[in-house]
Amino acid sequence: MATAEFVQDLKDAANRMRISAIEMTCASKSGHPTSSCSAAEILATLFFSEMKLDKDFPKSPASDRFVLSKGHACPILYAAWEEAGHLTHDQVLTLRKIDSDIEGHPTPRLDFIDVATGSLGQGLSCAAGMAYVGKYIDKASYRVYCLMGDGESAEGSVWEAAAFSSYYKLDNLVAIVDVNRLGQSQQTMLGHDMETYRKRFEAFGFNAIVIDGNDVNELLMAYKKARETKDKPTAILAKTFKGKGIEGIEDKDNWHGKPVPVESIKAIEARIVDKNGKGKLKLQKPVDNVPEIKLGEIKMAPPSYKKGDKVATRAAYGTALAKLGDACPRILGLDGDTKNSTFSEKLLKAHPNQFVECFIAEQNLVGVAIGAGCRSRTIPFASTFAAFFTRATDQIRMGAVSFANLKCAGSHVGVSIGEDGPSQMALEDLAIFRYNFFASSVVFYPTDAVSAERATELAANINGIVFIRTGRPANPVIYDNNEPFAIGKGKVVRSSPADKVLLIGAGVTLYECLKAAERLEAEKIHAAVIDLFSIKPIDKELIIEQAKRVGGKVVTVEDHYPAGGIGEAVCSAVAGETGIRVKSLCVTSVPRSGPSDALLEMFGISANKIVDAVKSFL
Amino acid sequence: MATAEFVQDLKDAANRMRISAIEMTCASKSGHPTSSCSAAEILATLFFSEMKLDKDFPKSPASDRFVLSKGHACPILYAAWEEAGHLTHDQVLTLRKIDSDIEGHPTPRLDFIDVATGSLGQGLSCAAGMAYVGKYIDKASYRVYCLMGDGESAEGSVWEAAAFSSYYKLDNLVAIVDVNRLGQSQQTMLGHDMETYRKRFEAFGFNAIVIDGNDVNELLMAYKKARETKDKPTAILAKTFKGKGIEGIEDKDNWHGKPVPVESIKAIEARIVDKNGKGKLKLQKPVDNVPEIKLGEIKMAPPSYKKGDKVATRAAYGTALAKLGDACPRILGLDGDTKNSTFSEKLLKAHPNQFVECFIAEQNLVGVAIGAGCRSRTIPFASTFAAFFTRATDQIRMGAVSFANLKCAGSHVGVSIGEDGPSQMALEDLAIFRYNFFASSVVFYPTDAVSAERATELAANINGIVFIRTGRPANPVIYDNNEPFAIGKGKVVRSSPADKVLLIGAGVTLYECLKAAERLEAEKIHAAVIDLFSIKPIDKELIIEQAKRVGGKVVTVEDHYPAGGIGEAVCSAVAGETGIRVKSLCVTSVPRSGPSDALLEMFGISANKIVDAVKSFL
Repeated sequence: MATAEFVQDLKDAANRMRISAIEMTCASKSGHPTSSCSAAEILATLFFSEMKLDKDFPKSPASDRFVLSKGHACPILYAAWEEAGHLTHDQVLTLRKIDSDIEGHPTPRLDFIDVATGSLGQGLSCAAGMAYVGKYIDKASYRVYCLMGDGESAEGSVWEAAAFSSYYKLDNLVAIVDVNRLGQSQQTMLGHDMETYRKRFEAFGFNAIVIDGNDVNELLMAYKKARETKDKPTAILAKTFKGKGIEGIEDKDNWHGKPVPVESIKAIEARIVDKNGKGKLKLQKPVDNVPEIKLGEIKMAPPSYKKGDKVATRAAYGTALAKLGDACPRILGLDGDTKNSTFSEKLLKAHPNQFVECFIAEQNLVGVAIGAGCRSRTIPFASTFAAFFTRATDQIRMGAVSFANLKCAGSHVGVSIGEDGPSQMALEDLAIFRYNFFASSVVFYPTDAVSAERATELAANINGIVFIRTGRPANPVIYDNNEPFAIGKGKVVRSSPADKVLLIGAGVTLYECLKAAERLEAEKIHAAVIDLFSIKPIDKELIIEQAKRVGGKVVTVEDHYPAGGIGEAVCSAVAGETGIRVKSLCVTSVPRSGPSDALLEMFGISANKIVDAVKSFL
Repeated sequence: MATAEFVQDLKDAANRMRISAIEMTCASKSGHPTSSCSAAEILATLFFSEMKLDKDFPKSPASDRFVLSKGHACPILYAAWEEAGHLTHDQVLTLRKIDSDIEGHPTPRLDFIDVATGSLGQGLSCAAGMAYVGKYIDKASYRVYCLMGDGESAEGSVWEAAAFSSYYKLDNLVAIVDVNRLGQSQQTMLGHDMETYRKRFEAFGFNAIVIDGNDVNELLMAYKKARETKDKPTAILAKTFKGKGIEGIEDKDNWHGKPVPVESIKAIEARIVDKNGKGKLKLQKPVDNVPEIKLGEIKMAPPSYKKGDKVATRAAYGTALAKLGDACPRILGLDGDTKNSTFSEKLLKAHPNQFVECFIAEQNLVGVAIGAGCRSRTIPFASTFAAFFTRATDQIRMGAVSFANLKCAGSHVGVSIGEDGPSQMALEDLAIFRYNFFASSVVFYPTDAVSAERATELAANINGIVFIRTGRPANPVIYDNNEPFAIGKGKVVRSSPADKVLLIGAGVTLYECLKAAERLEAEKIHAAVIDLFSIKPIDKELIIEQAKRVGGKVVTVEDHYPAGGIGEAVCSAVAGETGIRVKSLCVTSVPRSGPSDALLEMFGISANKIVDAVKSFL
């Protein structure tokens, strides 16, 4: 039982944090003080009674994790780190300034943020990933706390994460919902209907506790119950008021995302009992029972194919993933009930403890993977049909803002998958993964099994978001097992001094380019062929050099829609040159069911169509 | 109470449909017979006892709606339409052939499909959109039935749709979950734990009924209870077995998505009592109480601004939407709790019955909008921050496969939003909306209030997916109120015979281009400026003509990442020409919080940076 003095100290801390949140948003003339104030007691009790955190090393692998899913309430988080002595008041007053990392929504530019938030409903998946790793991989005592808003519980991703967390019995995970009743533009769907929140979380397998979330004693009791609960995650459903403590504004509409009058701090100050209490409360030190790990260069046993063997790149991905699992116990495979199609099941079979089935919930799949990769505890490889990664586009977008270490392997790309039809055909995945911008983001599109294995190995050794585009059909191995592959490097797979056109393909279309080049040669038209392999970064130098060598005519061929695909990437790569013309063959209408080869023909990316394009070009 | 004979006829129909589903997947050598067979009784009872459908006009506005959310089970749906006499057996045997519309997953190429399915978890949102329109806009008696799989209930979008459906008391909506226990690669999370399904749907506000889903009597009883339930949607949780009726395969692992031995039909045939019963059961005619509507050309009262007035394009969007609402009672606004930021609230205020608040659940927002637009019952305009449309990328992708009539207005684009930081900045939305390929898909990026209003009016009159990219900052009106705008047409907003470079911008960057051109002119460097306006289709002719006129040097400037944005679109538009070089200014790293202007400068898309780029180019 907490002493009355300690409880009062926590109340004082909450009010000091409130004041700081108001001051910083007044200084920045924007931000979310009311969404911060509803959570002041939650943060104060978490930081100064419940969690184990290291003031000097917030991302210590041993410490508890905290995810602020309602990222717009970051002023109260910054205030908590100020109260803990990690940030100064001057620092937090730089909120939202261009030269400050105290941003409008939290990002890992700050040393106490694991994942960027601000797109709502994503935090719980990341927290679940951390908790999964804590319980089953690190087997350590650190716990994971995720503070969510009530409005964001309308996001389906929250329920994907909830189902996952109870399925895997993540009793080291505590979700706290700050039910402050008001969204941005009106009352939330459930308002203060706490019983419905309780029923929903219970139905999704949580130990659900409804409390007054502005009451310090009730919060402390709820954390205790959470710690005592085994084999279930806990949801603390905290009834609060938006703008709590701000006179005239508390529980009122139209105060979302705007500063409140600075004078409002006076009444809050008056409620603080120990006026000199700042710094009195201390963080509890983490328990150091986390295994030390080293994630150096990971080397995989080399590919072992015979040239001409027919192997799908998705199968080679699975083989490589299993071999990476042999090489490093922190390689983690995750899949969305497609493991027998993406071949990630090869890792499951070889190393059952290094695989997490995430079922048909791709947003959570990606969120869990991002969480699992935090603090370098694992190297997560998430796989599903490439088309279904579009379901997690926002999570991948936020992964980029988080500077996440995430590998995505998407299979069944393009019309070449055949009879399953357009809903299953990824035709926009290159655009989606190419737009994620930070230096180390990479997109590989291997053509054969050797390059697919190498792409997977390269991916494991890149710290950043990597997408590997794998295909459904089994096609011949074209490279030697010892052929080297590198980021940003394409391959000239066919060339002669007589070349008059350059064909660029990857995956299934590379085979079509090679077939077309054969046929053209029979008609004495010589064509060079590039296997692009690395779609991002693209091998600009090689493309320009080869394009100039053949006289400036380039034909790109891709099993993808035009926007953001290989054609546009190549056009953009040569845009600074004169004398190079690019013709792009790609899928330009909604495809349909049919045999793979017939679809390549119908949608204009077959060898025949390449031959026609070259002839009309010359 | 159904007669014993009728019940037997329904059982016979179910078995005939089973056989047909097996035969068609044997003929196509691929497909999902086991996922079909679990649902045979559900489909037979729906079609021949419960639903009101018109055999000769399946998409009659008066008829009940059926959404097959578990799209891979389409063989059983095709078999139902065969049993009803709408398809012949020869037709269904063309399953998955390249010249047949009987595709591997259903698409609206078929006259009885409203929305394409096959990406799981999306059907219920579309069904909810139809039910919302039925109850509140058509005020008609048609009902909406959505058949889901159990595996797909892991998708969060299902729970977004569930929350929405109960919030709006959609008692004309029945969700049926075919709980056949097995996913693609293993048992689902809940297996046959029917009580947990019941708790979840009850917690989300449904009248939940657990039954034996292969029992015709229990199904009939459940539909009756659903019809009697007021102010709540119903969920029928049907315990079934995958491959039901197929000896040796029923309830067995490893039979997902593959044909079963054709010999298995013998035992099913033997169970049919009335061997000549095909065609005996008839569909019940729809009740014709749906209002007739005409959606002809919608004309909006013209814009009324003064040149130089500072108006954000998002505000102009709201103004135009409200005026479109004046002109047409079937304009429907939908928003995700951002209506006071996207300004869709102007429609809510003017026409409360033409607006649906969808709360913070963007997947469902888009799904409901797609459903609401089906059978031309409404023209849906969905709005949220453009960044948050990325949450619904898969729904938009499927919208394209559905040939949906959907308008998306995304506000708060790019770094120009300022202090809220990267999580709120749309920098990939052009790529996402550009890749959706069918002839009428359009992307508008208006610069000022006049063009924003016209873009909204144009969108209302296009049958297809239209994206309108609106901005946060208030910028000067530059066009006359009577300036005409058109699909695929840009505007030369500055030109002189002395031009030596062409600047291309849209939105905030157009103002930067104009400022840069002013400054360059002071240094005697003349620059032409194009307002792109229509990003897709792009005004290729105008760009090439102007680029050639100025001597081939083009600078594109966009508040967007490079992949799939304006720069790549322009590069691609001029790729067939020699002598044109394009320099692309865009955002190439993860942005941060700060003032709008400072961010344009820091991320390289300000007037200063344009001036520098031009000088280094010439």
